[in-house]
Amino acid sequence: MIGKLNHIAIVVPDLKAASDRYRDVLGADVSAPDDLPDHGVTTVFVSLANTKIELLHPLGEGSPIAKFLERNPDGGIHHLCLEVEDIQASKTQLTAAGVRILGSGEPRKGAHGKPVLFLHPKDFHGALLEIEEA
Amino acid sequence: MIGKLNHIAIVVPDLKAASDRYRDVLGADVSAPDDLPDHGVTTVFVSLANTKIELLHPLGEGSPIAKFLERNPDGGIHHLCLEVEDIQASKTQLTAAGVRILGSGEPRKGAHGKPVLFLHPKDFHGALLEIEEA
Repeated sequence: MIGKLNHIAIVVPDLKAASDRYRDVLGADVSAPDDLPDHGVTTVFVSLANTKIELLHPLGEGSPIAKFLERNPDGGIHHLCLEVEDIQASKTQLTAAGVRILGSGEPRKGAHGKPVLFLHPKDFHGALLEIEEA
Repeated sequence: MIGKLNHIAIVVPDLKAASDRYRDVLGADVSAPDDLPDHGVTTVFVSLANTKIELLHPLGEGSPIAKFLERNPDGGIHHLCLEVEDIQASKTQLTAAGVRILGSGEPRKGAHGKPVLFLHPKDFHGALLEIEEA
């Protein structure tokens, strides 16, 4: 079912400082910040040779990552995003295996405009996994 | 400086259950468990199309991940490992930029037999980064 690692998401308290650090200290290409008001986040992508890191910062009221940042004021690794070919087929398989899907349980449009699901961390050993149709 | 993402490490409370879940539910290839007494961990590698996930469980007394599992009894994403060409050159650049290196401050042989450094999470926005000479 699972293909590539699409990205690793890291929530950071200061997006500018984090972008600068990945660019200036690690020498990575970093994107300009992108406000995604529908998702309650601002994103910066850090390009690696085989995948990317997504730096996330809360945007607006009720951001889905606001509580994470309250609990982890220094920031922290938030989730992994894995690619699948067919999100509905994946949903059926995951649900049949007893994996709980967060939110409505239906795929929604993710930050890249593609359908995604988030899986319950308790069903994956404490790791929050996002599944994205590639 | 930074090349590929070598792996993402996830600490899990039950290595067999986690391996089975990644293999049976996500359809990934998973390795046999490998005891690394010098590192105080048992590892299982989950192959993805472009990188890998390293599932970690404490081994023996004084495992470096024992406290993480106490704080996160369900498990959790522990660190990212990024590849560099020259670990000593990277160490010099990182130190010059004010990044703190954990432990002795000198590269040590990592779980794959290659020299590694771990960087202070407070210097990377809450994310623990391992740097490995590829």
